[in-house]
Amino acid sequence: MTGGDDAFGEMLLRGLADEAVAEIAERDDGYIAVSIFGAKGYFAPLRRWPAVERRAMRFVRGRVLDVGCGGGRLCLEAQLRGLEVVGIDISPGAVEACRRRGVRDVRLLGIDDADESLGLFDTIVMFGNNFGLFGRPAAARRLLRRFARLTTDRGRIVATGRHLYDTDDPSHLAYQRRNRERGRLSGELRLRMRFRDLAGPWFDYLIVSREEMAELITGTGWTIARVIEAEGPFYCAVLEKASRP
Amino acid sequence: MTGGDDAFGEMLLRGLADEAVAEIAERDDGYIAVSIFGAKGYFAPLRRWPAVERRAMRFVRGRVLDVGCGGGRLCLEAQLRGLEVVGIDISPGAVEACRRRGVRDVRLLGIDDADESLGLFDTIVMFGNNFGLFGRPAAARRLLRRFARLTTDRGRIVATGRHLYDTDDPSHLAYQRRNRERGRLSGELRLRMRFRDLAGPWFDYLIVSREEMAELITGTGWTIARVIEAEGPFYCAVLEKASRP
Repeated sequence: MTGGDDAFGEMLLRGLADEAVAEIAERDDGYIAVSIFGAKGYFAPLRRWPAVERRAMRFVRGRVLDVGCGGGRLCLEAQLRGLEVVGIDISPGAVEACRRRGVRDVRLLGIDDADESLGLFDTIVMFGNNFGLFGRPAAARRLLRRFARLTTDRGRIVATGRHLYDTDDPSHLAYQRRNRERGRLSGELRLRMRFRDLAGPWFDYLIVSREEMAELITGTGWTIARVIEAEGPFYCAVLEKASRP
Repeated sequence: MTGGDDAFGEMLLRGLADEAVAEIAERDDGYIAVSIFGAKGYFAPLRRWPAVERRAMRFVRGRVLDVGCGGGRLCLEAQLRGLEVVGIDISPGAVEACRRRGVRDVRLLGIDDADESLGLFDTIVMFGNNFGLFGRPAAARRLLRRFARLTTDRGRIVATGRHLYDTDDPSHLAYQRRNRERGRLSGELRLRMRFRDLAGPWFDYLIVSREEMAELITGTGWTIARVIEAEGPFYCAVLEKASRP
């Protein structure tokens, strides 16, 4: 590639400049997925969010960490509601897009960089299927334990997941089967973003069913307090501290 | 890739089945171009064609060869007009899509396979920027000479090209510059189509300006009789025999 690696951020910035852009994710088996909604989904106001995330907003309270804040839609909604919110994203273009859109506290940090230096949070939000940003099961467990330290006793994680088994695409089913044959969870994906002459770095992305999520988080200090379901491919899990001291 | 190589044809067939599909072309420098019109452009009725191609239809007469017939839009329009038309495409899925849409004579052949066995034509149509299918300048000259033998004395080629220099995309400009530095025409591209888990084979694709086309065809038996211009990135050239016997 000739153009650098912030494919996701450039997509957002071009979308912010009103260009028609599509979002392209490439899987390591060569599968290429295009979302023609492009940047728009990342800028959407509350009324255009997936139903499960609109309904999950009542669980978002206090001081908020938005992990993978993208185009800033959650940060801006939280600001509207008078909440203190910190957005983090690993994409420089995403951080820039958030700033231009009025997000007051957005930082260039990956999920691995979220630590005590950010202070204590009441809610950690992982919308837009961002539970996937945990990457691999072992990393998810490690980061969930850290998130337990980053949150108050009444702290929550509000995270969107995707019904990965709700597909009849032979390519997805074959990918899931190969994963299981290798002892992995079905939804352990390896992806990179593409945009024009930009290709992002390959990254791990973890899609888990409700049941897999429940098993995965056992022993991390969290438990699933509630799952919100609605029409569409997503569900939203509200995680709370497993045993409050 | 796991799914085979007829990315273009599968895109058309899924589009024909009313799925929302995008068309994805990847250039050999990693640039990825998405057309969110997807299959629709290949099925479009006359009124939705690029203006230059609508206007070029008055030069399409007699027995017609449609090179790279795609979704069959030209074949179907020619049939409506009572013309005898043969469509050829190298994509099995495209040929299948044409058949399902009612194209009466469509054959699985690449541009290199078009020879005297198809009979004599009054018009060879290369719409949808299909002048590009010539691939490389030397192949273009060789095939143009052959097309002269495949056509009547009053035969025509009606071909769409693209204003390749009408861009300010740094990636396109850099690609063009690298081509010139290597002694190539600016618009000698190497591309492949992508669709879900399918990746087509790499192929050469030739974009030439009006002036480059005029120079390229010199000595092949053809001359540019007319160029149709309109709003948009395309022009349409009407080629006629350079010296009628």
